[in-house]
Amino acid sequence: MALLSPADLNAQAAAVRLAVFDVDGSLTDGRLWFDADGQESKAFYVQDGLGLRMLEDQGIPVALITARESAAVRARARDLRLTHVFTGVADKRQCLEALCAQLEIPMAAVAYLGDDLPDLAVFPLVGLAATPADGHPWVREHAHWVSARQGGAGAARELCDLILAARGLKGAVLARYLPR
Amino acid sequence: MALLSPADLNAQAAAVRLAVFDVDGSLTDGRLWFDADGQESKAFYVQDGLGLRMLEDQGIPVALITARESAAVRARARDLRLTHVFTGVADKRQCLEALCAQLEIPMAAVAYLGDDLPDLAVFPLVGLAATPADGHPWVREHAHWVSARQGGAGAARELCDLILAARGLKGAVLARYLPR
Amino acid sequence: MALLSPADLNAQAAAVRLAVFDVDGSLTDGRLWFDADGQESKAFYVQDGLGLRMLEDQGIPVALITARESAAVRARARDLRLTHVFTGVADKRQCLEALCAQLEIPMAAVAYLGDDLPDLAVFPLVGLAATPADGHPWVREHAHWVSARQGGAGAARELCDLILAARGLKGAVLARYLPR
Amino acid sequence: MALLSPADLNAQAAAVRLAVFDVDGSLTDGRLWFDADGQESKAFYVQDGLGLRMLEDQGIPVALITARESAAVRARARDLRLTHVFTGVADKRQCLEALCAQLEIPMAAVAYLGDDLPDLAVFPLVGLAATPADGHPWVREHAHWVSARQGGAGAARELCDLILAARGLKGAVLARYLPR
Repeated sequence: MALLSPADLNAQAAAVRLAVFDVDGSLTDGRLWFDADGQESKAFYVQDGLGLRMLEDQGIPVALITARESAAVRARARDLRLTHVFTGVADKRQCLEALCAQLEIPMAAVAYLGDDLPDLAVFPLVGLAATPADGHPWVREHAHWVSARQGGAGAARELCDLILAARGLKGAVLARYLPR
Repeated sequence: MALLSPADLNAQAAAVRLAVFDVDGSLTDGRLWFDADGQESKAFYVQDGLGLRMLEDQGIPVALITARESAAVRARARDLRLTHVFTGVADKRQCLEALCAQLEIPMAAVAYLGDDLPDLAVFPLVGLAATPADGHPWVREHAHWVSARQGGAGAARELCDLILAARGLKGAVLARYLPR
Repeated sequence: MALLSPADLNAQAAAVRLAVFDVDGSLTDGRLWFDADGQESKAFYVQDGLGLRMLEDQGIPVALITARESAAVRARARDLRLTHVFTGVADKRQCLEALCAQLEIPMAAVAYLGDDLPDLAVFPLVGLAATPADGHPWVREHAHWVSARQGGAGAARELCDLILAARGLKGAVLARYLPR
Repeated sequence: MALLSPADLNAQAAAVRLAVFDVDGSLTDGRLWFDADGQESKAFYVQDGLGLRMLEDQGIPVALITARESAAVRARARDLRLTHVFTGVADKRQCLEALCAQLEIPMAAVAYLGDDLPDLAVFPLVGLAATPADGHPWVREHAHWVSARQGGAGAARELCDLILAARGLKGAVLARYLPR
């Protein structure tokens, strides 16, 4: 696989019907805080969250798939009113294929953002395989697109904006916010 | 809207009588930490806080307006002795218009710092619409001014300093700190 | 005041007999985390901590002076076995003058690291007034020296190293660590 | 000691049979969060963790050695299923020599990542002494290799990848992740 040309990227983004996000390193900066009791925290980015909500509001479902078991992820997902949330996933490919079957969406219409080797299990199968600016170099070699922003700092939002713009929805989105 | 020239920016800043700040992404870096109990934290910047206090001490009231409900925001606001603090706000425009009416300050004398689409609801209405260096690109298109520093890392202080300098108050502020 | 030439900087650093550090923005990156209970955290940098310990081990006492009341600062100070720790200080000048009188060290032999306007109260009085790379611009105008690293990310350590090197102690320090 | 040439670096990396990591500043960004109760947290990087797991899965044992006593380190080590975990270590050289004796691995076959002066105690003894991009300058002077990424943000993973690639294992690693 290699990076797509701008024209091909636009075509793939316009065809997206499901947007799937890895969590650690993609929706976060990859840092795991451990406290004195061994409890774990992570940080999500508010601009990314709005991007996910906008996709769903424009009729493009969003899913989170992560290998880690995490109460933080479930809390953030509730916060964003996301329903397709899979934590503690050993096999990301199987999880994604089952979700696509359930939603009746072909893998070719899936955009997937991931930053590390476990995400390679689905990269060759989806229509738009994306990685953050700080995604692992061996993952970048297999990505269609690399965001300018880093994971947990706008990478996910960039992907959302790319899809919305390619589908001609930027104006509709802005109209919801700008005063009449 | 477009970026103001330095002269126009100075004139708008000199006319500011109320300074209003979005929270996540503007007074913070936009990150939301979630812990193992699903509880949420965020980080404020100490230099920004001093800027807000200096504005109020020089007679320019400060307000915080955020869509999120947040105990962290209320704690930081108490810490800074701010009284105009609005959390869980669904309609930022309505909130700001009500505050301006109460304080008898026209929208043209309001400076507003925001980083994402919900802030566009007030951008065209205020005298000085500002966004941090890492504000969303679709917001930058509608801003009068973009700070050099990022949100939660000096963007708010830069706006405070801009207002204080434009009003000729830099010397008065420094005199309070330098030894006689 | 203006930045010192390298020769003058070296002379001032060699004369230092007491090193004093502001906390927020100097020993931290200036961020204050507030959690869902309104409780506050901050982050110290481990390389900075070793610098402070090395100064004391080489006979140069270290003091922390901060305007905020903070259990986090007291915990970090205990961790580093520092004894001159002043929190909740309203008047930094008075605090520093009292400490100098007690230790019988002239203000001209004090190095002080600070990042914001309240630190200007002592800048013109001390022998070596230093600010981090991300210190406030109005503070930089009054500093003898600006570190290359940012606050809470090596600025303090740089100052410690500068003092140790100027006093000819780099070799003695390294000899404690390198294997014989 | 001086930086190795690429050919010598590759030879040293290919000979590694044990990979040892300092914690604060090497597996973390060196920041220690202290909360209002004086309790301490630190942040690990998820890509680093996968690198450590991959080394062990390819038959190269991994050890953590840190001077600080830390429940956070023990929790992260459990999370990664690491067994050679030494916290509260006063003498890193003695600890490493004992581990090498137990595992019957010569010091010349050890890779060690460290960022500050206490790590110099073992730097001249090991086959591959590495420091992160933000390692202390006096440590860099004694390192064989400096990573491009910073501590707690990919430095450790870079070292893992270097070892895996030098041993010709990159293909085998990728084959475990890419779909057949």
